[in-house]
Amino acid sequence: MRNTSHRIVVLLSFFVLPGAAIAAADTGAEIAGKGTPAGVPACVTCHGADGGGMAAASYPRLAGLDAGYLAKQLRDFRGGTRTHAVMSSMAMSLKDDEIAAVSTYYASLPVPASTATQSAGEAAPLAAKLATQGDWPARSLPACAECHGPDGDGVGTYFPGISGQVAGYIKAQLMAWKSGTRANDPVGLMKSVADSLTEAEIDAVANYYAALPGGVPAPATNAAATVDKGNVAAPDQVHYGEVVQHEAPPAGRPMGNNGYFEPPPREEIPEGPFGDVIARGQAIFENTNAHPVSSGFVGNDQACGNCHLDAGRLAESSPLWAAWVAYPAYRDKNQKVNTYIERVQGCFEYSMNARASAAGAPPAADSDTIVSLVAYSYWLANGAPTGDVNMPGRGYPRLDESSRGFDPERGAVVYADKCALCHGEDGAGVTLSDGRTLFPPLWGAESYNWGAGMHRIDTAAAFIRHNMPLGRPDTLTEQEAWDVAAYMNSHERPQDPRHEGDLATTTEKYHGGRFDYYGKRKTREGHLLGERPAGN
Amino acid sequence: MRNTSHRIVVLLSFFVLPGAAIAAADTGAEIAGKGTPAGVPACVTCHGADGGGMAAASYPRLAGLDAGYLAKQLRDFRGGTRTHAVMSSMAMSLKDDEIAAVSTYYASLPVPASTATQSAGEAAPLAAKLATQGDWPARSLPACAECHGPDGDGVGTYFPGISGQVAGYIKAQLMAWKSGTRANDPVGLMKSVADSLTEAEIDAVANYYAALPGGVPAPATNAAATVDKGNVAAPDQVHYGEVVQHEAPPAGRPMGNNGYFEPPPREEIPEGPFGDVIARGQAIFENTNAHPVSSGFVGNDQACGNCHLDAGRLAESSPLWAAWVAYPAYRDKNQKVNTYIERVQGCFEYSMNARASAAGAPPAADSDTIVSLVAYSYWLANGAPTGDVNMPGRGYPRLDESSRGFDPERGAVVYADKCALCHGEDGAGVTLSDGRTLFPPLWGAESYNWGAGMHRIDTAAAFIRHNMPLGRPDTLTEQEAWDVAAYMNSHERPQDPRHEGDLATTTEKYHGGRFDYYGKRKTREGHLLGERPAGN
Repeated sequence: MRNTSHRIVVLLSFFVLPGAAIAAADTGAEIAGKGTPAGVPACVTCHGADGGGMAAASYPRLAGLDAGYLAKQLRDFRGGTRTHAVMSSMAMSLKDDEIAAVSTYYASLPVPASTATQSAGEAAPLAAKLATQGDWPARSLPACAECHGPDGDGVGTYFPGISGQVAGYIKAQLMAWKSGTRANDPVGLMKSVADSLTEAEIDAVANYYAALPGGVPAPATNAAATVDKGNVAAPDQVHYGEVVQHEAPPAGRPMGNNGYFEPPPREEIPEGPFGDVIARGQAIFENTNAHPVSSGFVGNDQACGNCHLDAGRLAESSPLWAAWVAYPAYRDKNQKVNTYIERVQGCFEYSMNARASAAGAPPAADSDTIVSLVAYSYWLANGAPTGDVNMPGRGYPRLDESSRGFDPERGAVVYADKCALCHGEDGAGVTLSDGRTLFPPLWGAESYNWGAGMHRIDTAAAFIRHNMPLGRPDTLTEQEAWDVAAYMNSHERPQDPRHEGDLATTTEKYHGGRFDYYGKRKTREGHLLGERPAGN
Repeated sequence: MRNTSHRIVVLLSFFVLPGAAIAAADTGAEIAGKGTPAGVPACVTCHGADGGGMAAASYPRLAGLDAGYLAKQLRDFRGGTRTHAVMSSMAMSLKDDEIAAVSTYYASLPVPASTATQSAGEAAPLAAKLATQGDWPARSLPACAECHGPDGDGVGTYFPGISGQVAGYIKAQLMAWKSGTRANDPVGLMKSVADSLTEAEIDAVANYYAALPGGVPAPATNAAATVDKGNVAAPDQVHYGEVVQHEAPPAGRPMGNNGYFEPPPREEIPEGPFGDVIARGQAIFENTNAHPVSSGFVGNDQACGNCHLDAGRLAESSPLWAAWVAYPAYRDKNQKVNTYIERVQGCFEYSMNARASAAGAPPAADSDTIVSLVAYSYWLANGAPTGDVNMPGRGYPRLDESSRGFDPERGAVVYADKCALCHGEDGAGVTLSDGRTLFPPLWGAESYNWGAGMHRIDTAAAFIRHNMPLGRPDTLTEQEAWDVAAYMNSHERPQDPRHEGDLATTTEKYHGGRFDYYGKRKTREGHLLGERPAGN
């Protein structure tokens, strides 16, 4: 708890004087306990003296939630983008500074012990799967944990803690997203999630999270977080979270496993020493930069799973099962035949910037890291035909070029609307305190370097179009995907490890294509991209 | 030619005085040109003044053939195990020393230019395939080159030169093997080969070899060769080449590709840089110890193809296509998960005794050797289901244990009858002057070491039963396979590279099984196997 309080004070200090912050917290406590002079009733009436909510009435816990999140909800109640019989009228009577004060107060309270009276019961395995794995192939459904954090404790302003939350409240919100009576979700994410859940699944997930001990939300360490905290003092300044029109999936897009290879279910990883290595491979894949076996080979905040969704299982997201049967293969990139192992080592070299890692180089072919990743890939491809280099769903399906080309300036608008929510205005993403990356950095020192495939605008556009925003694939237009990819790759990032000191030479040898800004486009600071790489 | 003459003189010197050898050659020339005082007509009448034969009458070339081979044929004509209207009666009039003399004389003559009047024509691709690849999956048919040498120039006493031989003679002999009118083939090999060829194929192969320039036979550098040469002076001393009863294939054995995966045909290796690497992989596989890319990693006279017949394509002969889809896998041998690359490196470490190679170690995972072998394996498995660890035909199908166990003494008899013909009495096999291995060494310094899978008696028995003699699989009884495997592995071979100086420790750690003589059985010289390894 001390960490949380400390964090909030520090963050607030950017906007208000420390003395004023303390005063605001005191004001918040007063509002919570006594109401306001303007006639707002005391919050404790419904949310409890400790802010733990009231399970029997489905009133939510507020204690320990993120201040920015709480403030945004109050503002949304006040402005009408969220409605509730009691809360709407109450919020309309609150002034900005009162919203900030009461939000800060509740954020500073310790998280009470869960009051859940039932667990997910027989539905626990289903709930755990939805919470930690989602259901990608069938319905593009991200795991709850992918945004709310691994333990559901919440992340930053837009992803509230749901662990130890009141079950009835969680359920009511999911049903509200589903029916459309609540619609203040950023980028339409919760609507999309709730739409694909059955009521039984919603019950299961609500009970599952309610029974977990609530924890401290992870700070969103990126620029978006800074702005979010800013919202406490200066609401409505930035609009990441606007209501979007929910679109039907474009006709013709294969849904579920239709036409795609189906890797074995996660729970079928075999027992025994081989299965142990497969499971370790999956764990490394999902948390490459934080896993004790592999972290020493990762020089940034990237994990394999950041570019290969659903732990490398998802079609159109460079699934491992399609790659496995396509290697060895000749690659133009290094003009030789590459084994699968060399291909994976390339991911470390470029996407995970191994030169900046503790080891300073990718893991060896017989290292635990590589052997585990190979075993995991092989297992995912179980039954796939060897040599099929054109499995449906392989890679990121290329986009047709647009007559409008691609434009970082147009892309900046898309980015602010649809991407900065998770990846931050500064592109730094969110990495948790234990080293795990929740939202990967898209540029800067902790992102992929200039040798990674993703630095190509066409590759990034294809990835984005088919995979972003998380859980809402194919909702950006192709033009938006092109533009935002150009915006992302118009920023500086770690040097291409093939660079031998001369930018022009490296550009000519490795960056000749027109989908590539390296050595060709100037940064906002006026130097050529690649000239003064991030972190160098 | 000088080499050949030199070799014969040297070999003869083991049995007769050099002066006598020269005298014998002179006598041979006299017989050939004038006949014998006992009334044998001059050989030149039919075989030509230069020993080149007479193509129009299908009389064979004798010049440059192996002396031991020629002598054996004359003895067979004399003894009735080979018959011919003219030759039988002539040979009956020849004394042992006359047979030796005339054989030595013809062996010493230069090989005349081919007198072939036609090539294989349209049938040339078929003929080339039969000559250099055989037709293993469909009919267990070895390539002619596998015994007669890569250019058909002949090897030692039992595999005569067929390049530049008279086409009509080759055809007549194959038809004679087929019909049973000629039956003096060692181990029934030629009967087996001829039975599976159509007359059109026989025509094609005969024309193909007749059109090749004849060359000098390769010396059989093993002990069998020594004994063969001995036959010139001391006939009938050893009987490797006795007539065997030809058996029908056992009922129930899958013939052809029935039930087995079919790798892509060799001629379908793709064009381009990837295909080039696949083709290099095949070449390395077939001649690992002689190929310029891989030879530096091989410390003995073994090639991959020695244990994986038909260049790794053949079912029940540890085919690569079955191995490819079964790796990575956990192996008890080293108690960890091994990638396919590590598995192949293990073959270099043990079966190809890399410690004694120029490099002193197996090739690295990203070496040209490994990448090529991986590409070749992958290509062979094209279409095979990833993860199928039980593909029919994988490995060497295990034999049931026999109530009689296995016995090297019984195995020695089998070996002399069925194996020494190619592998030599001393197990040293035949390696050609260009470094290529024709018949692999089975023990001694140039064979697999004590860490290779083949040192296990059960593994060797399975291999032998299903693959040996070459082209006559499953003709040994299972008991014979067990016994001869025990005999083979009761000889000394290079040290196990896991040995750290103490035989008992190595035995306990790595050689505990009862199918393994290492550290447990004494050699004929009285030391424990593994104690003074071959070549150490």
